[in-house]
Amino acid sequence: MSNSQKTYKPKPISGFPEWLPEYRAVELKWLDHIRKTFESYGFCSIETPAVEELDVLRAKGEVDKEIYVLERLHKDEDDDSEARLALHFDQTVPLARYVAQHFNDLVFPFKRYQIQKVWRGERPQLGRMREFYQCDIDVLHVDNLPISFDAEIPAMIYEALDGLDIGRVQLRINNRKILIGFLNACGIEAQDEITEITRIVDKLEKIGEDEVAAELKKAGILPEIIEKLLTLARNKGHNLDFTKIQSLNDMMKEGLDELKFVMDTLAHLPDHAAIADLSIVRGLDYYTGTVYETQLLDIPEFSGSVCSGGRYDDLASSYINKKLPGVGISIGLSRLFDVLKQNGKIEPGPKSPADILMVLPSEERRQEAMETARTLRARGYKVEMYHAPQKVKKQLSYAEKKSIPYVWFPPFEDGSDHEVKDMGKGEQSPADPDNWEKS
Amino acid sequence: MSNSQKTYKPKPISGFPEWLPEYRAVELKWLDHIRKTFESYGFCSIETPAVEELDVLRAKGEVDKEIYVLERLHKDEDDDSEARLALHFDQTVPLARYVAQHFNDLVFPFKRYQIQKVWRGERPQLGRMREFYQCDIDVLHVDNLPISFDAEIPAMIYEALDGLDIGRVQLRINNRKILIGFLNACGIEAQDEITEITRIVDKLEKIGEDEVAAELKKAGILPEIIEKLLTLARNKGHNLDFTKIQSLNDMMKEGLDELKFVMDTLAHLPDHAAIADLSIVRGLDYYTGTVYETQLLDIPEFSGSVCSGGRYDDLASSYINKKLPGVGISIGLSRLFDVLKQNGKIEPGPKSPADILMVLPSEERRQEAMETARTLRARGYKVEMYHAPQKVKKQLSYAEKKSIPYVWFPPFEDGSDHEVKDMGKGEQSPADPDNWEKS
Repeated sequence: MSNSQKTYKPKPISGFPEWLPEYRAVELKWLDHIRKTFESYGFCSIETPAVEELDVLRAKGEVDKEIYVLERLHKDEDDDSEARLALHFDQTVPLARYVAQHFNDLVFPFKRYQIQKVWRGERPQLGRMREFYQCDIDVLHVDNLPISFDAEIPAMIYEALDGLDIGRVQLRINNRKILIGFLNACGIEAQDEITEITRIVDKLEKIGEDEVAAELKKAGILPEIIEKLLTLARNKGHNLDFTKIQSLNDMMKEGLDELKFVMDTLAHLPDHAAIADLSIVRGLDYYTGTVYETQLLDIPEFSGSVCSGGRYDDLASSYINKKLPGVGISIGLSRLFDVLKQNGKIEPGPKSPADILMVLPSEERRQEAMETARTLRARGYKVEMYHAPQKVKKQLSYAEKKSIPYVWFPPFEDGSDHEVKDMGKGEQSPADPDNWEKS
Repeated sequence: MSNSQKTYKPKPISGFPEWLPEYRAVELKWLDHIRKTFESYGFCSIETPAVEELDVLRAKGEVDKEIYVLERLHKDEDDDSEARLALHFDQTVPLARYVAQHFNDLVFPFKRYQIQKVWRGERPQLGRMREFYQCDIDVLHVDNLPISFDAEIPAMIYEALDGLDIGRVQLRINNRKILIGFLNACGIEAQDEITEITRIVDKLEKIGEDEVAAELKKAGILPEIIEKLLTLARNKGHNLDFTKIQSLNDMMKEGLDELKFVMDTLAHLPDHAAIADLSIVRGLDYYTGTVYETQLLDIPEFSGSVCSGGRYDDLASSYINKKLPGVGISIGLSRLFDVLKQNGKIEPGPKSPADILMVLPSEERRQEAMETARTLRARGYKVEMYHAPQKVKKQLSYAEKKSIPYVWFPPFEDGSDHEVKDMGKGEQSPADPDNWEKS
């Protein structure tokens, strides 16, 4: 390394978030809690490479996400013979590819969680990043998937989000068969017309009933149908009375029955936690039954959906000749974290994971201090060794700067006691490394 | 999604490993253990983006690693005004950039761990991948870094590797000042000559003393120097007698003193765990003092170094006008995992993280079964709900396929007992969800 070289002053890369240790500590706590919740329901972890073949990503046709493609800086002749690789933009396409590729080695129903970063080359703005964590759960089965999973998924997600200390979380649940059944009963059956109506109804929360009615009218929907549709969409609540909603055909009945089953199964949750909401339709054509959206009730200014998902009939038909219905949901973790952080709603964590800072009394007593640290580590404590026999005041100030809650003083002289200082309370007292307990 | 579309049969991407859930479970156990060890010494977690600006990666000059550069699939005019981005090929350059960028917000000595994937566009082969996990620890300080960290790093790494169930691990430790001091004392002071000799000595284990002697002779080194050098390099052992090694100048003495300090500080480890080995020099010019290599003693056929590192004088001078000496080590986790897996040395884990499969007796008893599952989860157990009220035999066989160790039978009739089947022992007995303990 030459000393004469110029320095290149690094700067943040727009859209690629990076946290200081005290915020990374919070992110890690979130990731741990979410993972623990997913595993407590028996969902297994999988991880797929950061890349997929570009042809895999586009197997269903052009993708509307901005894809990052990989190029080797120094190409050689091999490169032309190899498949083009691109960073994945979600975890759904990789899941479909994974299940198709490993079909014979998996046990179905296949219940997996996947917590990884995904990449999208979009223009960065608040809450929209180019690199971000997604936390996904999905259940897939062959041919038929029991409706009970449509209820298990929101129960898990509520628990996962409720543990993040972000105020009250509300899952809003609907079933697309209700709207589609209703439209069919009104004589609207063309797929493109249904898609257009869904797209408009999806804006209900954003633009309100009047605007939605106006747009529907412009799209050629008859006033009496608009009226009935808006009345239907007004149905919402934790204890929605399904007997008051008239089903007009089999599909609508199926949707209502499924939604009722899901809500009944979620009866144990607090009233605010999960509501049936017949205005929720999700923009994507992809979903065929249950759909989910999520709101943070105590942070109304965060209007975007924190996490969303639903049921799909056929995940992997682009990669395998099997019918694999599934249901899943995805938490946009980095997005949630970033928006809350920028709104000052995230309390930074400690700069060190240590429970205890071990004071180094003198160079001669290093072995003793290290042994005390080992004893405490073996008992499950996280112990950082101070590195130099500096003044006690300096060692205490280091613990303070790193928010380490306890400072341990091994004997400064032969025969004297170990002592521990509780930095929060400011109290110092004798302690035995074999028996001490964190208060 | 059209049913008439062709399927695109996916295949593995060479160099980008992907595991089935039962192997991912083992990888996750490894990652957890390593992280826990790092944190138990008070090292904090940081994560940097997958990408760096290409100019950051090349700030020190051309890189000998194969770099993947990102291109957006659909470029627009913005792209030319933005910096070119590339996937990081290690975690050392990102650490240097991170510390320079956030210098004023960090507490020094800065002790961090970083467990992320890195990417290299190299030709894949056994143990060499294009995407792999690295687990890095480094300590950085401003201007001067105490030698005690050179001893803490191998203590941590031994604990991290020893817990992976891969047999006996041996850290081999040396100090480059010894060889460089020795060469200086022999009148060899030109940097390129020292580099060339280091490169040859580095091959000792691979090609043996005779070949190394021949190569050194070819490089113009005098026979008596070669003789002395090989004698010096033969010094190795857990309890190496440093008094028997004569230091020829101040630099050599400093190297020997530092190495002795490190070995003395590691005296608590088992004899096989850490040895001083004066033949270890590491290829990189980068290192200036202590150097580390690692061997798996029970898997001699795995000749490559599992993890390696050392001390460097000045990490971030390309990015900031500060002297930041450091010491660090990196575990090539995916490489280790892949080689052991391909050698049949990794026992697959369970296909589900669940401790317990909850039997569903009938649709009518779903709420009761779910409530039992919730009770057990609240007590810390991982409980997978069976999804359909199928024959008990079928539910048991599912638990077996997923290696779930316990199957719970909630009451099949009012008033009857809960029962648990221990799948390993084949025993079934009454149990109370509020008090049951895993045996």
